[in-house]
Amino acid sequence: MSPEDPRAVEVEAANAAFYETLERGDAAAMDELWLLDDGVSCVHPGWPVLSGRGEVLRSYALIMAHTEYIQFFLTDVRAQVAGDTAVVTCTENILSGGPAESAGELGPLVGQHAVATNVFRRTPDGWRLWSHHGSPVLMEDPDHAADDAGPAPDDDEAAGR
Amino acid sequence: MSPEDPRAVEVEAANAAFYETLERGDAAAMDELWLLDDGVSCVHPGWPVLSGRGEVLRSYALIMAHTEYIQFFLTDVRAQVAGDTAVVTCTENILSGGPAESAGELGPLVGQHAVATNVFRRTPDGWRLWSHHGSPVLMEDPDHAADDAGPAPDDDEAAGR
Repeated sequence: MSPEDPRAVEVEAANAAFYETLERGDAAAMDELWLLDDGVSCVHPGWPVLSGRGEVLRSYALIMAHTEYIQFFLTDVRAQVAGDTAVVTCTENILSGGPAESAGELGPLVGQHAVATNVFRRTPDGWRLWSHHGSPVLMEDPDHAADDAGPAPDDDEAAGR
Repeated sequence: MSPEDPRAVEVEAANAAFYETLERGDAAAMDELWLLDDGVSCVHPGWPVLSGRGEVLRSYALIMAHTEYIQFFLTDVRAQVAGDTAVVTCTENILSGGPAESAGELGPLVGQHAVATNVFRRTPDGWRLWSHHGSPVLMEDPDHAADDAGPAPDDDEAAGR
């Protein structure tokens, strides 16, 4: 598919809107991004499958409620469209932070690295999510492992545990 | 969709054939299960995204060449069909073994637990894979994921933080 394919451009915009909605923590907007039928499914990194609008949207509402700050830098975005369906793959470079111990402050930022396969269907209201599957990237180029490693193991080592 | 939907039955059969082909280690059969266009994509658990028939099929050939024994017990299989596209989610309960140190013996078996989202498209030759995304289940209590969504406070406790 050529990069100028208007359907691919539409789908990439829908994919970007999905991550922007997560960044804003806007649960009502998230509800509108998903298909209205109960065939939707979602896998958050490290999670089992969630099926149906109830499970999927509740998980996003809870994740957004527990996330003080999150920003997605998407790379390797590829949209493949066939008829009214599209598959988008991308790398999610995630910067997130929880609340700090002192009120009003942001806790330490954590960088994470995941990949996603997002499936969209075209509806009269635009492209809507049918499936999201995100997963941690555990197999890293050794040169970049330090950038992508979570903080926990290093912290434990530093503390002599 | 009712469980009797003939399209869902076809798709579930295609999904089962995918795992049976992996079990048999049949690289030639695997090539035929995927769409002929280069829009295919694949994420093995913990891996980055592989795109295009070349990368995807080479990865399967390599995985199958390095796997002495593998068996998939699929549970929670759900097929959702819309027109000529289908999304199948399932839990992969995997039993695998590598070669033992003494020739002709099988090494110790390892049980693993992953989830997959498999996207199929209908072609004149039947349902073919468009995308596979598999990921490890890292959450401690998968049975309650939908109820306890959120950034797993138990993990922090377990890590002594």
